[in-house]
Amino acid sequence: MQKIWAHSGDSHFLEPEDLWQQILPPKQAARMPRSEKVSDDEEIVHVDGQSFRRKLPKIMTKRVEGGMTIADLSARPPGARDVKARLVDLDNEGIWGEVMYASLGLWSGLIRDRRLVREAAAAQNEGAVSELQDAAPDRLVPAAQMPMLAVEDAVTEVEHAAEIGLKVINLPTGAPPAMPDYNADDWEPLWAAAERAGMVIGFHIGTDTEDPAIFRGPGGAILNYVETCYGGQKVATKLVASGALDRHPELKVLISEGGATWVPFLGDRMNEAYRQHAMFIRPPLTRLPKEILFRQVYASFQHDESAPAAYWAMGYPNVMWGSDYPHLEGTYGHTQKTLHELLDGLDADVRRRVSRGTFEELFPHVSAPPAS
Amino acid sequence: MQKIWAHSGDSHFLEPEDLWQQILPPKQAARMPRSEKVSDDEEIVHVDGQSFRRKLPKIMTKRVEGGMTIADLSARPPGARDVKARLVDLDNEGIWGEVMYASLGLWSGLIRDRRLVREAAAAQNEGAVSELQDAAPDRLVPAAQMPMLAVEDAVTEVEHAAEIGLKVINLPTGAPPAMPDYNADDWEPLWAAAERAGMVIGFHIGTDTEDPAIFRGPGGAILNYVETCYGGQKVATKLVASGALDRHPELKVLISEGGATWVPFLGDRMNEAYRQHAMFIRPPLTRLPKEILFRQVYASFQHDESAPAAYWAMGYPNVMWGSDYPHLEGTYGHTQKTLHELLDGLDADVRRRVSRGTFEELFPHVSAPPAS
Repeated sequence: MQKIWAHSGDSHFLEPEDLWQQILPPKQAARMPRSEKVSDDEEIVHVDGQSFRRKLPKIMTKRVEGGMTIADLSARPPGARDVKARLVDLDNEGIWGEVMYASLGLWSGLIRDRRLVREAAAAQNEGAVSELQDAAPDRLVPAAQMPMLAVEDAVTEVEHAAEIGLKVINLPTGAPPAMPDYNADDWEPLWAAAERAGMVIGFHIGTDTEDPAIFRGPGGAILNYVETCYGGQKVATKLVASGALDRHPELKVLISEGGATWVPFLGDRMNEAYRQHAMFIRPPLTRLPKEILFRQVYASFQHDESAPAAYWAMGYPNVMWGSDYPHLEGTYGHTQKTLHELLDGLDADVRRRVSRGTFEELFPHVSAPPAS
Repeated sequence: MQKIWAHSGDSHFLEPEDLWQQILPPKQAARMPRSEKVSDDEEIVHVDGQSFRRKLPKIMTKRVEGGMTIADLSARPPGARDVKARLVDLDNEGIWGEVMYASLGLWSGLIRDRRLVREAAAAQNEGAVSELQDAAPDRLVPAAQMPMLAVEDAVTEVEHAAEIGLKVINLPTGAPPAMPDYNADDWEPLWAAAERAGMVIGFHIGTDTEDPAIFRGPGGAILNYVETCYGGQKVATKLVASGALDRHPELKVLISEGGATWVPFLGDRMNEAYRQHAMFIRPPLTRLPKEILFRQVYASFQHDESAPAAYWAMGYPNVMWGSDYPHLEGTYGHTQKTLHELLDGLDADVRRRVSRGTFEELFPHVSAPPAS
């Protein structure tokens, strides 16, 4: 079976447990969140001189196969925490370039001090360059973390991240609780800054403001899994409907891990709203919402067999494959099987677009994979 | 331009304002909800001896074009309230058979007396037969209203509705607040009764437990329009993931007005959950969730240009067109234009399936449209 090389619009890196001690001066590092596990399902979080006890998320506590949790299973691949081993894993799997999301993503909501959040994000992003991107600058595309206590802090960090060579910034699908929603005009300076700096905005599903694990009872695992994807659809809707992407036609957004077939669905639904409820639409857009969505929003999927047809049959060009490496929801260990199942029998143009072309358009600095 | 005849999986009938006086004995009629408009945006609801004041929904109060509200605009077609005029409208538009949802759908949540709710639903359903279905029994498919204060009451009414000749029952996408969610086993007797009676379950989007008009600010109208459709996706997920449709392989569900392209998206996402999170899945299913969804869930759309490709390119067979007559979101006045835009240039099999075949499979008692 011929090896298919693909780029991935969705992967994760697990930071070392002493990350803050490594990248911040000791006084600042001591103020950053630190978790102390106190029982099977509780932790005490120490942050900036305060402490609070909280339940661990179920993903960290529910034990399956051999006593492992989803978090354990997701950290199993050798390269989960080690960038050299990672490149070996990627070569074995047939993954060339990849967008990498940080795993320590939610700490900034725990800190009230804007300066500390700004400095920690800047240090984390410099670490992403030196520890990750520099290991294979034509392959690894780590996403910059943003200080989110004020829009102007995020603007400053977008400029810093671009300056040190990062190509994508990561925002949560849910705006932080103290901030206005993403359709509000308050965010305009951030959209402008990202467009100006040529930074892609990467939203990874499952980063909503509220915990999406809301269903209990029969079918709960499937219901909660489905639920995580709606946050990605909603943030894309906000950026289109509010006019943000219309005002910034060079701004590109990537929604990672939420599938791709939802995009034509959402485009048609937004167009219906725009036409049938025309009298209520504010602001008016210079292009139909579906056109904006199709042009400026990119979407990555892992296993969805319908995703390539979103491109070849429904005209949505920005279908991008993603591995979700090293997570349990991803393709680690069966990447080649999945890529063959998805792409065999399709036109060469479609195979190339989904496995490589969409990604290379968004990240033209990434090199071509080896001839397969 | 050749006339395209289509069946519609989604339409509405506006009941006469004195419906309860017409169909119930005076003592019961007097207990049913009655609205008294007291200002531009408030009403007093009188129900079963009690009264309360409440804000009118924005759809009833926000005035656009010539001082009309969405509710006014949606009642404009001549046949909105008059079944004879309706058949003229349908002939003009090129619509043959149609599923008809009641407009007085939310009253039962206001009443606490199970017997009154049961008797009112039974009377409303008998009226749907005599006033609507009997006017064109091979074309009009009104949906039965269900008494929802207890599962056993709904079971009894499913059997009654089937006995008087109705073919579809209407359930809200959100389970009533006092009831368990639809994935709970409590609903099992209703699924069994609907399968036994050969009744399709019709869910119309926008009937969630909570008001979906949750977004404010720029793009709010589009955001709220998109939001309404997720309730349909979630109830379909609940019925598949909980095993309800797996246990009742002859039970068919119709999700009206929410589009159709979401179905392949959802099927792929559920399959990914089922495989990648296999260790958490309860109950196990005898078929993959996507197979259950594709076989037993039908979906109607109005304008979505990607919907036919959900069938011909993604293999979802149950794509059904719908007019949403007489509502503003629907195709009244431009049905032929829409059908031609959707179907011209597609294979004859696809044109037939989307415009007629899917509907005729679900409702085989409906006759064929005239030769066009």
